Amino acid sequence: MSTRAYAALSANAPLTPYAFERRALRPADVAFDVLYAGICHSDIHQAREEWGPSLFPMVPGHEIVGTVTAIGSDVTKFQVGQRIGVGVFVDACRTCEHCLAGMDQYCEQGFTPTYNGLERDGVTIAQGGYANNFVVDERYAVTVSDTLDPAGAAPLLCAGITLYSPLRHWNVTPGMQVGIIGLGGLGHMGVQLAAAMGATVTVFSHSASKEQDAYDLGAHHFVLTKDASALSALSQRYDLIMNTVSADIDLNPYLQLLKLHATLVVVGLSGVPMAIMQGNLLSNRRSLAGSMIGGMPELQEMMDFCAEHQITAKVEVIAADQINEAYERTVASDVKYRFVIDASTF
Amino acid sequence: MSTRAYAALSANAPLTPYAFERRALRPADVAFDVLYAGICHSDIHQAREEWGPSLFPMVPGHEIVGTVTAIGSDVTKFQVGQRIGVGVFVDACRTCEHCLAGMDQYCEQGFTPTYNGLERDGVTIAQGGYANNFVVDERYAVTVSDTLDPAGAAPLLCAGITLYSPLRHWNVTPGMQVGIIGLGGLGHMGVQLAAAMGATVTVFSHSASKEQDAYDLGAHHFVLTKDASALSALSQRYDLIMNTVSADIDLNPYLQLLKLHATLVVVGLSGVPMAIMQGNLLSNRRSLAGSMIGGMPELQEMMDFCAEHQITAKVEVIAADQINEAYERTVASDVKYRFVIDASTF
Repeated sequence: MSTRAYAALSANAPLTPYAFERRALRPADVAFDVLYAGICHSDIHQAREEWGPSLFPMVPGHEIVGTVTAIGSDVTKFQVGQRIGVGVFVDACRTCEHCLAGMDQYCEQGFTPTYNGLERDGVTIAQGGYANNFVVDERYAVTVSDTLDPAGAAPLLCAGITLYSPLRHWNVTPGMQVGIIGLGGLGHMGVQLAAAMGATVTVFSHSASKEQDAYDLGAHHFVLTKDASALSALSQRYDLIMNTVSADIDLNPYLQLLKLHATLVVVGLSGVPMAIMQGNLLSNRRSLAGSMIGGMPELQEMMDFCAEHQITAKVEVIAADQINEAYERTVASDVKYRFVIDASTF
Repeated sequence: MSTRAYAALSANAPLTPYAFERRALRPADVAFDVLYAGICHSDIHQAREEWGPSLFPMVPGHEIVGTVTAIGSDVTKFQVGQRIGVGVFVDACRTCEHCLAGMDQYCEQGFTPTYNGLERDGVTIAQGGYANNFVVDERYAVTVSDTLDPAGAAPLLCAGITLYSPLRHWNVTPGMQVGIIGLGGLGHMGVQLAAAMGATVTVFSHSASKEQDAYDLGAHHFVLTKDASALSALSQRYDLIMNTVSADIDLNPYLQLLKLHATLVVVGLSGVPMAIMQGNLLSNRRSLAGSMIGGMPELQEMMDFCAEHQITAKVEVIAADQINEAYERTVASDVKYRFVIDASTF
């Protein structure tokens, strides 16, 4: 299948128009026209080889929403014309304990990333969603409600599930005190999701200008982190704190805000080790944990939850020829809160 | 009550004989003759002000076993002649949520340490167990089975509960894979307790000479940590790993040994922040947690568990005038596995 896309041809070059062939439909495959593809900060890290060697040419994009155009003979989940979404991975071993438990994001053999990785044949480079169409095994796609704005729904496939999965895993229920550090692409999803789960949500941000946005998104409290006394006044207040900031920040003051047996979860990779004082974990028997996207059943559950609660990302829609500019603005945190590419412009 | 003890009079002086008066018996108090008092590394840290300012004169000791000599009019748990134990704290607020839940070690107002802290009157310096006798509110003492060697039972009051509480909290059950980093005073308790709970226990040690001891204590596997490949071969093997090493060691290689949703628990204070790579927590949704001794109900439960399984610390019994030498040897890790002072020598 002929595909028009944007690709990075090397780590040092801007993304450029790129044409290639997607695989022909297999029995379990679904083909779809992409409607929107979100720009995730991890796209930039990988296109620029900031996380180690990458595979080029690279078509980034793992927040993909589209409309089904063809289905293979064995497909049961999708019909032509239906709205579909693809996230961070497009295959996994399917047989390990984690895959069988629906936690394919922790596949013991490693999942197949949507881009910047090899398909399970070991030779084909997987190519992502900055493109006009896509082909995927139906097992690694989810249905997306027509009631959701498709542009705002695209970032749910990565930013949304990255927050939804830990909020569920750590059992957020009505009345719980949840803190969200950082109000960016990830954080603004966390606020909406935690509030929809009934939590009392506090946003911790170093940017006073985000206060009104925090409330508009459903937060109940806003704490300006430049004010150290504002943090210490909240000692032992929180059941769960999510760190959504990818920069290197000191987590020790936030650990001190956790109740007995409570957890601070990191979902980003700053590339710099976290310096953690033991005493902040020993006190109140606290935990520091990590979480990475979510499994396929949970991805569908999250999509349905977002449809029920009408939750989408706040997005700025761009054309394909604005991708490089959007990368610069994303790095500068100059986006509220996610860039999404209109795939009709490829 | 007149007491003969050993005390540190300042941070720079060796411990010397010291006489003082314990309080007269209150209605809820129990008086007892000390039989044995363990030497915990934290005694040394505090006597030498390595954890910040200390209160002097200081009679250290929070691993105390003795025989009841008198009881107050309201005492119901103890009788004269009975064996009794006191651990790391001798009082708490008794009214906060944590105290009411039996987790007085996490008292929201702070517990009263057995030494190097003020009693709840705010003026009396609490004095510890390096002494011939002791007075304590019965609520903060436990019964110790006569079937346990009292010298080996003393370290259970700190070293034992420090390992028992997290092993219980993280639900160690038969068949679980538990790792114990370090085979010292804490580690040798962890091995015995985890094995008695039915776990398959691996000792991680940098000292090849401890291998036979590890097996004798009940370990099933011994891994020499100088061999990096021996560690990496155990990737994703463990349900729970306890770090009992108080020195600054790199925990990242151990985090990689944890299964999905498994936890590495630190129980010591190295004084140096832990440098933790986010990726090791994101993978397998792992946790790094802390744990601090245990609450009073759990301390009694641990004592009863140790009696049932005939678990004690392996100790070297010393006389009072050998305390300073024992401190030097403890700092040099030259003890298998705990010094215990014979209180008849005060």
